[in-house]
Amino acid sequence: MNSRDKDAVVLLSGGLDSATVLAIALRQGFRCHALSVHYGQRHVAELEAARRVAAALGAHEHRTMAVDLAGIGGSALTDPTLAVPESPTTDIPITYVPARNTLLLSLALGWAEVIGAEDIFVGVNFLDYSGYPDCRPEFIAAFESLARLATKAGVEGCRYRINAPLIKMTKGEIIKTGAALGVDYGMTVSCYQPDARGAACGKCDSCRLRAAGFGAAGVADPTTYAASAR
Amino acid sequence: MNSRDKDAVVLLSGGLDSATVLAIALRQGFRCHALSVHYGQRHVAELEAARRVAAALGAHEHRTMAVDLAGIGGSALTDPTLAVPESPTTDIPITYVPARNTLLLSLALGWAEVIGAEDIFVGVNFLDYSGYPDCRPEFIAAFESLARLATKAGVEGCRYRINAPLIKMTKGEIIKTGAALGVDYGMTVSCYQPDARGAACGKCDSCRLRAAGFGAAGVADPTTYAASAR
Repeated sequence: MNSRDKDAVVLLSGGLDSATVLAIALRQGFRCHALSVHYGQRHVAELEAARRVAAALGAHEHRTMAVDLAGIGGSALTDPTLAVPESPTTDIPITYVPARNTLLLSLALGWAEVIGAEDIFVGVNFLDYSGYPDCRPEFIAAFESLARLATKAGVEGCRYRINAPLIKMTKGEIIKTGAALGVDYGMTVSCYQPDARGAACGKCDSCRLRAAGFGAAGVADPTTYAASAR
Repeated sequence: MNSRDKDAVVLLSGGLDSATVLAIALRQGFRCHALSVHYGQRHVAELEAARRVAAALGAHEHRTMAVDLAGIGGSALTDPTLAVPESPTTDIPITYVPARNTLLLSLALGWAEVIGAEDIFVGVNFLDYSGYPDCRPEFIAAFESLARLATKAGVEGCRYRINAPLIKMTKGEIIKTGAALGVDYGMTVSCYQPDARGAACGKCDSCRLRAAGFGAAGVADPTTYAASAR
């Protein structure tokens, strides 16, 4: 597929998954408009990482938007009174942010409509998704249908596509793909509770998935861990 | 219908329609959590109006969230370099905010999930909708389906309802309904470009629809118009 000169909005958190998605969209020839959303999450270090990743990979532009999702509470990622869990769980974890991907895709859709992009890229992942409902293929399909109904561009014939190229990959496959595309994962931050310099805790769900992924991919783990992680 | 002690999130802009929706939800017995969203719109006077309306009608609580939708541009309501039109148009107008209702409903859904509410109320209106695609019944139905897929609560069996009680009413019917429920429309602000004290321009789409609505309803128009509107 070659989509040269076509515009895409790419949701870029600064984590490992979305950095890989940006590399995939660029390789497909899209002119990528990277969007990071600050929704009151604790891990602001991710947003700095997003800026570095967008520049290093060659996004056309990068914008950061703010939403005060912390105001509605309900997640250990946005509510400082809730502790981030440091052991595995089989339930949907407390780090789940209510309606997060619906919100992120809404913002991406609004920007896509303004710049005339038909494609939106998002790094959701079904296999390693930690039980988040808004990472499932049926959610992505439903949002794609909604996008065509929700917008002026959709009414006028725009066929929005929600591209989720990682949705059925394992973390190891994601890392292999990104490494082959030249992603420097040392720039990315996955930890739910990094320290002020972006160093990872090594204990949260996200750190555990990430470390296991490098192992499975046979790629050296470039993550900077906090001293307390050792 | 009596929903006493059931919680609902009610999107409350401070305009005429959403004030009427809040009155309807309260009459149906819901404990109403009113949500206003500041998305960079020019008409901040609406948000003050929302606060007054929530208190006067008896909402259980009222929160205001901020989203910097102005950052993606594309609407005369959020971009100060675009003029608000003062004559009717048959096209989707420049005051259309990309993906606005998708975004507002996403925020309402997130809050609903946190507080355990199954019902969301929104004042969209199909007949007088000025051509906005995200005010159509098929959009509301699609979002309701999405809500059940997008959330932890939905996965666990919550049947979200997106209530749009005004969707097939004329502006006159809306005003008659609200007046019968005791809504003081003098508190509401509909104008797209009110002055600093909330006085209406009398010229924009929204002012024209509102004024015609009071005429059709046979209800005295309590709107405060700016001196320049006369």
